[in-house]
Amino acid sequence: MRITLKDIANKTGLSITSVSLILNNRPNKISQKTKDLVIKTAKEMGYHPNQLAISLIKRRTNTIGLIVPDIRNSFFSLLAKGIEDACQQNGWTMILCNTSDNVKRDTESIRVLLSKGVDGIIYCMSMDGARVLPEILKLFNDFSVPFVMIDRFVPSIPVPVVTLNHEMGGLIAGNYLISLGHRKIACITGPSNLEDSRLRLKGFKRALKENNIEFKSDLLIEGDYHMESGMTAVKKLQGKVFTAIFAFNDMMAFGACKYLRDQGLSIPDDISVIGYDDNFFSELMEVPLTTIHQPIEKAGSSATKALIEAIESGKAMPSFTTDEPKLIIRKSTAAPNKNK
Amino acid sequence: MRITLKDIANKTGLSITSVSLILNNRPNKISQKTKDLVIKTAKEMGYHPNQLAISLIKRRTNTIGLIVPDIRNSFFSLLAKGIEDACQQNGWTMILCNTSDNVKRDTESIRVLLSKGVDGIIYCMSMDGARVLPEILKLFNDFSVPFVMIDRFVPSIPVPVVTLNHEMGGLIAGNYLISLGHRKIACITGPSNLEDSRLRLKGFKRALKENNIEFKSDLLIEGDYHMESGMTAVKKLQGKVFTAIFAFNDMMAFGACKYLRDQGLSIPDDISVIGYDDNFFSELMEVPLTTIHQPIEKAGSSATKALIEAIESGKAMPSFTTDEPKLIIRKSTAAPNKNK
Repeated sequence: MRITLKDIANKTGLSITSVSLILNNRPNKISQKTKDLVIKTAKEMGYHPNQLAISLIKRRTNTIGLIVPDIRNSFFSLLAKGIEDACQQNGWTMILCNTSDNVKRDTESIRVLLSKGVDGIIYCMSMDGARVLPEILKLFNDFSVPFVMIDRFVPSIPVPVVTLNHEMGGLIAGNYLISLGHRKIACITGPSNLEDSRLRLKGFKRALKENNIEFKSDLLIEGDYHMESGMTAVKKLQGKVFTAIFAFNDMMAFGACKYLRDQGLSIPDDISVIGYDDNFFSELMEVPLTTIHQPIEKAGSSATKALIEAIESGKAMPSFTTDEPKLIIRKSTAAPNKNK
Repeated sequence: MRITLKDIANKTGLSITSVSLILNNRPNKISQKTKDLVIKTAKEMGYHPNQLAISLIKRRTNTIGLIVPDIRNSFFSLLAKGIEDACQQNGWTMILCNTSDNVKRDTESIRVLLSKGVDGIIYCMSMDGARVLPEILKLFNDFSVPFVMIDRFVPSIPVPVVTLNHEMGGLIAGNYLISLGHRKIACITGPSNLEDSRLRLKGFKRALKENNIEFKSDLLIEGDYHMESGMTAVKKLQGKVFTAIFAFNDMMAFGACKYLRDQGLSIPDDISVIGYDDNFFSELMEVPLTTIHQPIEKAGSSATKALIEAIESGKAMPSFTTDEPKLIIRKSTAAPNKNK
């Protein structure tokens, strides 16, 4: 059993009050000799103050709850790493909940975190989290717990959000392919109900427009950010004319490359492919993948720092967009092959 | 601010005691009408019981702490997923700490988790965690908190451990390469101070011995489980005669394949390569990687269930080894090429 003040009082023959005054360093008139005895006894018995009791008095647990859809996905494990590191740097702790992209677990996880007395929550909702968002916002409100949504959000519902600059990423990818000479570019998007996918598409369309290139909706295929949908998307594109593919994440780009290769096509000689995320494996591919690098860990740590500041100051949590994404040029993109 | 019993008492004009008796469903003689009023008011005001206070009374938080060296590594994110799922299934919560393989943070993290009042800890130590293990065991002992080490452990220090069957994995990999006809097999091991690497090597040597093949220490290179060390290991092997490589994890196998490819060598025509882990990307490689699949998520969930049972029953946490690893045959292995 955990050693309590009572145990130390019994051992030293002093009152619990005296032991408490000494160990909590409160003003007292107890002799130095007695103090030394209590401190020595506490140390010998392995006494550690009960943080639960301290939290209850302070009404602060120095704990942040994090909700992610899938910790096995490197986007979220990088995010969690950034958040955990920022917590540790500030002497805070992170509690992780994984919802497996199951919207029921969004609400459940938030209830659990709130009942644990977390001081703030960083919430990355499930793909169809928009359905339960009003209910979740009511929970945050009831508990008066500061929170911030990260990456995924619903633009019509104004709450604190930390976003990566997806529109800029889409613009950069589009401009780069155009600069290589591509005019017929297929897009494999993420789910159309996710704002990040919509914004990447918006940026991509902007690149086309600024270069006076017509957007062709028949070259647009909706994927679901999983590898398989990259493969099926390219299958659906068969028979269409295009020289490049912009996949809205690396996983789908991997699927697209795999399918193209299986069809005997060469990357980038036949088709250029650009991904998004700068997944660790992009560099390891047979043809290393050109992609858009997002400052994910940094987004996690900036969101955490801002949230801790909001909790400690009592001021509102600000919304902000992180640094711009960066183009990482590897081997999967080249000028279109004029002979083909 | 959080709504308290006092707020509800003020609102209804009842005593805090009455409100508490009603909301905590304790025996009382209060009229049903008053009860209904209190319950309705509590609901309207958004009252939620303070879990911290409940935890303090019950001395149980239904929370497990997990310490991992690197959540970005898919081994540990799969493990965390298995543990988190098992926690959720049992109505428990997981607190995650990431040490970045920095042994100082092992002790720090355990102190933080213990001060949060976790009921149990699943501890996967840093690469050189053995140095601080005695100190850490003293902490667990002082707090009387049940714990289990997972995957990484020190055989000379008997504590509860859940291990994957690394020796069996090494044996399976060795036997498979031998069955293909390989006799000169290079090994890229993990750090020699990690038990999992030692056991995989032990299993591999057993496969050689059982097949009357001499073990050649000049074909043994120590790696560090990172991709780069797979590349440098193959570089060090240049000039030596071998037809197959057993890399002790997939990351190093990726590095080895990359280096072989850069040297103009073909896999498996020139050299067969087998990895270990069945990393998600093993299937995606140019030449999909033959590897050893480990039941990682299942190890996480079994360890969690056993730990929760130990906490609830007060009995000792048992040590056990998980199911056997499985050989996953893909394209990176074949019979040695007799013409080369």
